Amino acid sequence: MSGGFFYFVFRYFVVRIIIHYSQFITRHMSLIQDFESYRTKMNDRIMETANTNIKRFFALDTTTYADGALDVKTKEMLGLVASMVLRCDDCIKYHLGKCHEAGVNHDEINEVFMIANLVGGSIVIPHYRRAVEYWDELNLAGSGQ
Amino acid sequence: MSGGFFYFVFRYFVVRIIIHYSQFITRHMSLIQDFESYRTKMNDRIMETANTNIKRFFALDTTTYADGALDVKTKEMLGLVASMVLRCDDCIKYHLGKCHEAGVNHDEINEVFMIANLVGGSIVIPHYRRAVEYWDELNLAGSGQ
Amino acid sequence: MSGGFFYFVFRYFVVRIIIHYSQFITRHMSLIQDFESYRTKMNDRIMETANTNIKRFFALDTTTYADGALDVKTKEMLGLVASMVLRCDDCIKYHLGKCHEAGVNHDEINEVFMIANLVGGSIVIPHYRRAVEYWDELNLAGSGQ
Amino acid sequence: MSGGFFYFVFRYFVVRIIIHYSQFITRHMSLIQDFESYRTKMNDRIMETANTNIKRFFALDTTTYADGALDVKTKEMLGLVASMVLRCDDCIKYHLGKCHEAGVNHDEINEVFMIANLVGGSIVIPHYRRAVEYWDELNLAGSGQ
Amino acid sequence: MSGGFFYFVFRYFVVRIIIHYSQFITRHMSLIQDFESYRTKMNDRIMETANTNIKRFFALDTTTYADGALDVKTKEMLGLVASMVLRCDDCIKYHLGKCHEAGVNHDEINEVFMIANLVGGSIVIPHYRRAVEYWDELNLAGSGQ
Amino acid sequence: MSGGFFYFVFRYFVVRIIIHYSQFITRHMSLIQDFESYRTKMNDRIMETANTNIKRFFALDTTTYADGALDVKTKEMLGLVASMVLRCDDCIKYHLGKCHEAGVNHDEINEVFMIANLVGGSIVIPHYRRAVEYWDELNLAGSGQ
Repeated sequence: MSGGFFYFVFRYFVVRIIIHYSQFITRHMSLIQDFESYRTKMNDRIMETANTNIKRFFALDTTTYADGALDVKTKEMLGLVASMVLRCDDCIKYHLGKCHEAGVNHDEINEVFMIANLVGGSIVIPHYRRAVEYWDELNLAGSGQ
Repeated sequence: MSGGFFYFVFRYFVVRIIIHYSQFITRHMSLIQDFESYRTKMNDRIMETANTNIKRFFALDTTTYADGALDVKTKEMLGLVASMVLRCDDCIKYHLGKCHEAGVNHDEINEVFMIANLVGGSIVIPHYRRAVEYWDELNLAGSGQ
Repeated sequence: MSGGFFYFVFRYFVVRIIIHYSQFITRHMSLIQDFESYRTKMNDRIMETANTNIKRFFALDTTTYADGALDVKTKEMLGLVASMVLRCDDCIKYHLGKCHEAGVNHDEINEVFMIANLVGGSIVIPHYRRAVEYWDELNLAGSGQ
Repeated sequence: MSGGFFYFVFRYFVVRIIIHYSQFITRHMSLIQDFESYRTKMNDRIMETANTNIKRFFALDTTTYADGALDVKTKEMLGLVASMVLRCDDCIKYHLGKCHEAGVNHDEINEVFMIANLVGGSIVIPHYRRAVEYWDELNLAGSGQ
Repeated sequence: MSGGFFYFVFRYFVVRIIIHYSQFITRHMSLIQDFESYRTKMNDRIMETANTNIKRFFALDTTTYADGALDVKTKEMLGLVASMVLRCDDCIKYHLGKCHEAGVNHDEINEVFMIANLVGGSIVIPHYRRAVEYWDELNLAGSGQ
Repeated sequence: MSGGFFYFVFRYFVVRIIIHYSQFITRHMSLIQDFESYRTKMNDRIMETANTNIKRFFALDTTTYADGALDVKTKEMLGLVASMVLRCDDCIKYHLGKCHEAGVNHDEINEVFMIANLVGGSIVIPHYRRAVEYWDELNLAGSGQ
């Protein structure tokens, strides 16, 4: 056996370190992808299994945020603050993505975060932490997002 | 005894009917006044009794809704939708008053109501009913509000 | 003036006592009427003022409890327990009325109450108290309810 | 008719003013009485109608706050803060009464209020207002409470 | 060194792919196992560490869902809808398992899901997605579940 | 190639088992570290990105739990029970850590757990399970914590 067991272990960790760093890079963008791929997969499954009322409810969920008397940007901020005070991480991610698309800027998102923290209290803070992490990733993912 | 007992009862009810209608008129504007007078009375009492941290929290509650990256109108709609999904009637009344002052119109407030109902679900409906009643009163109270 | 002031006061209180007892009888059935009349009044107002999405949401609220794979009785108990753990008094009253109509009996409603208390905790108790009062009134209102 | 209609109306309002002021005095102490009498009445009714599990749940609600590793005063403050962040007015009144009995002082209750406001957010404020009113009444009711 | 570093990496990934697919199969059934093994482990630990009141509370949690005026199937649907509107994923998994055991069918579970979505609002949707995934796994685990 | 493919697989699993057990030991203390390192990382990021109001809110979150009319131990138990009934796992972990530091003992923490379960209901149980696991780890981490 060339190298012996210890050499094997050494090689094993070399590979592991390479994988670790490649994962580090992949992971960097993975909050968005993880959220969106699971959401898409399960929404597809729901469309296969749900009854008519559930499908109507989902349709209503889409039309509610469409451009109207209030523009999409305002509505998405409303959706975001509601999701934050109700402490729903997936809802927060979804509306953060939509706010990002709608062009909500750094100062604006911080004022939404503040209203959420104030109204909902310090129990919102852990969700705010995760929201900041997700918002950072959205911004790193860039204008191509 | 002039008129007798039955005449007394008759007069009693005449007066009662007059009072009833005058109360009807008074009551018309009373949701706003009841809410605001109790709120003012107790906020005054809080300023007398509260500790420094509570006073700071109240100060923060004021500065958070001040004009900034987002204008007052948008912030008050954010405060309203957060209050509705958390089902806090007094908070709803407060932000409805501020939305009215900030010029939120009929179609806009309905879109805020819809987002609140959708995100918070049908348990928001009783609060939405009371919100519509209060909003109607705010509009009846007119531009002088 | 026959009787004078003190006689007047005496007559006043006689009338007051009569009114009080008639109110006692009226009040006996008034939780149901108060709830239902306000609900009807505001639902009518909502139908006048709401946008299309809100009307669709209300329509969905109706069709969801219609007879289907689960019968109306089961669905109303589901609506009741959900309303209790979310601590929405008006929703509780509504579903108690529907449960009563659907023939939920004394032992069954108590088991729904227990699940609500257990899952939602002791903060449900004040709502449970009011639910018991309303359920008693529904039963007093009789089979003609 | 002695006095005439206008005299009648005058006398009516004299009596009304007397009643109003006597009500003012009565009302002063009535938050405590209203809460406690309704609570007692409905708890009695619950003991008549509830099933065994509900009765066990109520028994557990009592034993949980008994003196143990933590004293009654600490436990009642825990019950109060939990009730405040969950925004249950009746629960708040109950635990305020118990905190008062257990000798929680002005500065201590304010620190409990602050934690509740901070953790639960500004939606707790309306409940905090009512808590301050109730606490004031408990203190006015004096050491005989 | 036989094969050299690149051959090592190749072998490494062959093994990794095998493991990945075996994990894929394992994972298929793992939501149920992960939930149940953690739940069992911690319930055992709780029985070792908890005080008498907590043990009584857990006992009450069991007896509440026993067959009574309402059958187990109805009670488990009540437990499920309450867990969904309160957005407790572990509680949802537990009651989904019990509903599956009690023979709740596809159309019935969808009607429970709809009531939960309607009453609790769109913030329930992420929990509904995870519920659908778990329900699918319960059905794949078959009648032997 | 020395050892061949099967020998490679054997070696692979030997290493895997070693790693697994070392992970087992590491993991043993990792709930605390995972929570604290993420919390620290994101709090740092928040201090970089947040606006003045958010920073004031965070400052208030710190001063609220400082020694005052109530000592730190009591305040941390208040923070814990509030976090449990609001079902915020990260908040629970934070206050469990602080309670541990403040010297809350086994019987005391169980009485806090009981109040949380009772007030918040059986939906608190999954959070209570995770709290027991975290508390065990805090105690294993020992006096050096």
